[in-house]
Amino acid sequence: MALLGCGVVGTEVVRLLREQAGDLAARVGVPLELAGIAVRRPERVREGVPRELLTSDAQGLVTRDDVDIVIEVIGGIEPARTLILEAMKTGKSVVTANKALLAEDGATLFAAAREYGADLYYEASVAGAIPLLRPLRESLVGDHVHRVLGIVNGTTNYILDQMDTNGAGFNEALEEAQALGFAEADPTADVEGFDAAAKAAILAQLAFHTPVTAADVHREGITEVSSADVAGAREAGSVVKLLAICERVPAAEGRNGRGVSVRVYPAMIPRTHPLASVREAYNAVFVEAESAGSLMFYGAGAGGAPTASAVLGDLVAVARNLRGGKPGPVEVTYAELPVLPMGETRTRYYIQLDVADRSGVLATVATEFAKHDVSIQAVRQVGSGEDAQLVVVTHRAADAALSATVERLRSFEDVRRVASVMRVEADDV
Amino acid sequence: MALLGCGVVGTEVVRLLREQAGDLAARVGVPLELAGIAVRRPERVREGVPRELLTSDAQGLVTRDDVDIVIEVIGGIEPARTLILEAMKTGKSVVTANKALLAEDGATLFAAAREYGADLYYEASVAGAIPLLRPLRESLVGDHVHRVLGIVNGTTNYILDQMDTNGAGFNEALEEAQALGFAEADPTADVEGFDAAAKAAILAQLAFHTPVTAADVHREGITEVSSADVAGAREAGSVVKLLAICERVPAAEGRNGRGVSVRVYPAMIPRTHPLASVREAYNAVFVEAESAGSLMFYGAGAGGAPTASAVLGDLVAVARNLRGGKPGPVEVTYAELPVLPMGETRTRYYIQLDVADRSGVLATVATEFAKHDVSIQAVRQVGSGEDAQLVVVTHRAADAALSATVERLRSFEDVRRVASVMRVEADDV
Repeated sequence: MALLGCGVVGTEVVRLLREQAGDLAARVGVPLELAGIAVRRPERVREGVPRELLTSDAQGLVTRDDVDIVIEVIGGIEPARTLILEAMKTGKSVVTANKALLAEDGATLFAAAREYGADLYYEASVAGAIPLLRPLRESLVGDHVHRVLGIVNGTTNYILDQMDTNGAGFNEALEEAQALGFAEADPTADVEGFDAAAKAAILAQLAFHTPVTAADVHREGITEVSSADVAGAREAGSVVKLLAICERVPAAEGRNGRGVSVRVYPAMIPRTHPLASVREAYNAVFVEAESAGSLMFYGAGAGGAPTASAVLGDLVAVARNLRGGKPGPVEVTYAELPVLPMGETRTRYYIQLDVADRSGVLATVATEFAKHDVSIQAVRQVGSGEDAQLVVVTHRAADAALSATVERLRSFEDVRRVASVMRVEADDV
Repeated sequence: MALLGCGVVGTEVVRLLREQAGDLAARVGVPLELAGIAVRRPERVREGVPRELLTSDAQGLVTRDDVDIVIEVIGGIEPARTLILEAMKTGKSVVTANKALLAEDGATLFAAAREYGADLYYEASVAGAIPLLRPLRESLVGDHVHRVLGIVNGTTNYILDQMDTNGAGFNEALEEAQALGFAEADPTADVEGFDAAAKAAILAQLAFHTPVTAADVHREGITEVSSADVAGAREAGSVVKLLAICERVPAAEGRNGRGVSVRVYPAMIPRTHPLASVREAYNAVFVEAESAGSLMFYGAGAGGAPTASAVLGDLVAVARNLRGGKPGPVEVTYAELPVLPMGETRTRYYIQLDVADRSGVLATVATEFAKHDVSIQAVRQVGSGEDAQLVVVTHRAADAALSATVERLRSFEDVRRVASVMRVEADDV
């Protein structure tokens, strides 16, 4: 067994392997022994990590004859990809927590696993310790998944929760999250939705048995979410969450549908929805399947210990497979469904417009929606004079039609400002 | 492949096998073919079930050479046990939804699976389609589970939810549940906690790698839960739920603890706890593990389609194992921890006493608690004169000490009636 990387997760893996050695050996049937740990600077002292195991020669470590399982917790695309492929090529099984790599080039890894008969387990790559991929890969493998709706990034959930609870603005909430260690100094990957998009790609791939990469995912972050958006949601009995949404788009005929829609953006969900009560940095994922109905998985989505717990669960599974002489199931992406462009995805919009307090404004606005074939579910005027606002909630329509409508409204003389535009999700759950 | 039993779940399994034949074949790698269905009365017409597959010769069916997997959805101890053992003895793998059998005699089944190298999968036996056993068996296998706290019976959750929401009494809520099909004509198995106790035994066995049978589980049903109990809980910011609780009891030394406590009873939990918002007939299970932290699994806990979804997930796993020539992991109960008696379990009590409105009553009551070494967290007097009540909430103490205290209080002249006694759980989560 070799460990690649010894940061927060790696250190925790080493600690758990030592502390739970007896239990793990009993559960696997043989002891799990760490042959080496590849790090960039082996000379650095790491508490609880035996110095003699450290090496800077990752390439040499993954191809050693006495290594049968490689645990990769370096993260990023390279050198992780090369090392994982090298390991599988020489007959090793792999456990990884690398969401970026799986979302960018999962197909190459799955193909290698099939070719070399190697195990490739990656529960830790999405939602930390929440057992989510295994249920999707295995428990629901006999069912037909319609939709996956998830809060899969703890940093952004913490920020949005603070904005909702304390009325904080985005920058203020971000600073607090950074001070508390919930957000990194450079928060781009989280707040711009890159992290959630990678996880959405992995989830969609598993749920729909179809290849999806991070580049296929429509992505919008939360940096543009304003206090007005959050207050508007609150008035509407909703809350703003950054959602990863993987949906099977129904077709007139055929079970598999016309394709899949995979997207990440902030959206309003009703406060009565179970996802609405996911607070602070917690993660939760809702799965809707034909026979199983609605399922929810909830827990800590990040952190060294929860991620290490997921790595160890995979490690035991892989070790048992090795003892039995047979790898576990390999991803099958037989469905090959197309990923539909965002413009074709049917969504709902909630729009606040600052308008001139003149008769006829409502008619003008309503006419513009009708022109784009967007049906309005409700519209109401709030305030008067300088503070006159129209709040419009639409029915489902093609996203392209909705955004085109909003663009047109911006140019109207009687529309002084588009104060808030937010998609509405989970209204039909 | 053979199916034993063709009731609500069996019929749904047949339907899904037909409707999803293409998807299932792609996911397994070969088509799944049903060779026969054993039922008591093969002459009865069952919609969507091919007549020519039906047979009354279950014994003959499970030992047929062209059968490699046996799906058991008959339920109950016999003939299910004999048929499952017969199937494994002749080299077949087994998928079962039979909680009663697993809770009564799981050890025999696991031993047979080990002896004959057969797969034994049973996700459908607890909490319907909610993937719960596989996460416990596999995802958390590298972690250390401290506690499992679950709402695992939909009927009783529906009844308690109605009592909480509408102020209905137990009998009224039960009748409504029966009218709506949430409770059976003979509701004993549900309302007396037998169903939940069987599930608790299965969960404890998996969580603590230790043998636990239904007979080991301390069990109290909800028939004694009164409107006063529910109202008292509401006033205390709590809600009454029938909980299945599996706990590792810490020891002064050693990781495995002194033993395990497995129990089912109605208890108060704070409304802020995620389990409190589990409404109607839904199920949810909270798992607390050392590294993973708190996890929750939520979904429909019963019904033909959800249960069939779980059966099919297992079926695909077993079929893949067969193709690969190697069975999946078999339960290991290496820990052999003792199941502690209820009296030694440390719990908290919430007690309402109708008392004489006399000075000194509080002192008398408090003294009795002290005599039993039970520490009081809070006590307050409500009402006066005829309506005088004392509400006592204790700290954790041995359950035997708590119940002995309550017994003594009943004999006090100044205590006119013990109006409500309810355990308090999940307060420290």
